[in-house]
Amino acid sequence: MSNVIQFYDIPGNATPDKAWSPNTWKTRYTLNFKGIPYKTIWVEYPDIASVCKEIGAEPTSIRPDGPYYTLPVIHDPSTGKTISDSAAIARYLDKTYPDTPVVIPPETDALHAAFNFAFSEAIVRALAPIMLPATNAQLNPRSEEFFRRTREESAGGVKLEDWAPPGSEKRAKAWEKIRAGFGQIAKWLSADGNDKLLFLGDKVSYADITIVGWVIWVKRVLGPDSAEWKDFETWDDGKWAKQLALFEKYEVVPDA
Amino acid sequence: MSNVIQFYDIPGNATPDKAWSPNTWKTRYTLNFKGIPYKTIWVEYPDIASVCKEIGAEPTSIRPDGPYYTLPVIHDPSTGKTISDSAAIARYLDKTYPDTPVVIPPETDALHAAFNFAFSEAIVRALAPIMLPATNAQLNPRSEEFFRRTREESAGGVKLEDWAPPGSEKRAKAWEKIRAGFGQIAKWLSADGNDKLLFLGDKVSYADITIVGWVIWVKRVLGPDSAEWKDFETWDDGKWAKQLALFEKYEVVPDA
Repeated sequence: MSNVIQFYDIPGNATPDKAWSPNTWKTRYTLNFKGIPYKTIWVEYPDIASVCKEIGAEPTSIRPDGPYYTLPVIHDPSTGKTISDSAAIARYLDKTYPDTPVVIPPETDALHAAFNFAFSEAIVRALAPIMLPATNAQLNPRSEEFFRRTREESAGGVKLEDWAPPGSEKRAKAWEKIRAGFGQIAKWLSADGNDKLLFLGDKVSYADITIVGWVIWVKRVLGPDSAEWKDFETWDDGKWAKQLALFEKYEVVPDA
Repeated sequence: MSNVIQFYDIPGNATPDKAWSPNTWKTRYTLNFKGIPYKTIWVEYPDIASVCKEIGAEPTSIRPDGPYYTLPVIHDPSTGKTISDSAAIARYLDKTYPDTPVVIPPETDALHAAFNFAFSEAIVRALAPIMLPATNAQLNPRSEEFFRRTREESAGGVKLEDWAPPGSEKRAKAWEKIRAGFGQIAKWLSADGNDKLLFLGDKVSYADITIVGWVIWVKRVLGPDSAEWKDFETWDDGKWAKQLALFEKYEVVPDA
């Protein structure tokens, strides 16, 4: 059996290569950018916790009802290590494979952690009303049932289809919030008066990979021909579409 | 007349040197750290807008009722420039005085902007219920009247003394939120598993100056002998007290 890294991801039907999840895209982009070979192992939602326990992956948080397991996870047979959480995986790969391009330069480590928090506050919550229902619609049946049940529970029982139905005022407002969130990030990228495409200015870092991971989610799950994606592409002078284009060569699922 | 930078600050009575404001402390720490001479000009709250307009300082935001002017502002006679906002001032000083230690290394500029947003979300809002009333109590009468009126208006008319009275459950909860916010920052500083005191690891940056600016506010306004400050000093293994000690040589008001 091959000794390559095992990369655990969640399959969907938005694209033929199955890949859609923003958090796992961050890891795939990182692996592809570094040129580290890996094998993708597809796990449906109801199996994530049991697979994680089986391979010794840590939960990424503790919730009132117990440990909460998420993907991505990687298992690296060459070190025997299993790592959860896309940022922790990036740090692990930087350290373990020092001959590959670093994505979190050590002197920016704490700033990267602050970025991660800021990005979450500015963007992740805003995306939920539109992106979670659209995500659900492209999952396989076993995942779809699990995702719907858990997400509707967390929304006080409101059906996913009623969160922000296409054409509704709710959706227009939710979309505006997403636009405002990305507008906030655009401000960070031009804080010193020079409008940048990459966070560190002249080289790719995990901050860029984080943004592109979420942008590819929007493109793939809403669809590249959707009116919403066409709108998104124009935001902030096309910055996000340009970032995505810059990462196009890393937007591959090698074993799809 | 001297050609030194004019630094506009708000006076208070918490300490004999009058300096208390977190946002202006960020600029004072920056100037002291860089060793750039300056003269402090003290401005009471009701005069901030008119002084800013007089010296050509930009408002730092636009509110429904018009431009909103804040301090710090600096005016630099050697370039003729007037700069508002502590982060913009730091960037200006880095560029204009390249022989002084840089506080926002250019490659970290966008990450610093994200940090600023993250810090605000994690800390600034949490501090208000306890810190704004304590701040008000040490202002001079003209500022006190202005500060009380504007802050109570923004709180729906609730008297500052009722926001989080000493000994109340409200205060205990507010204090716990502040502690949680600093706990969040401590996590960023140890994201790679190595617990750091400074954001860039081995050199001071504007992220550290930001934190210390807010910590000195807590110490000065609540009082170094207060039970709350004594508690604060123990948080996160004393990290914030250690940071403050590291900056002690820059905690000076040269012309006080």
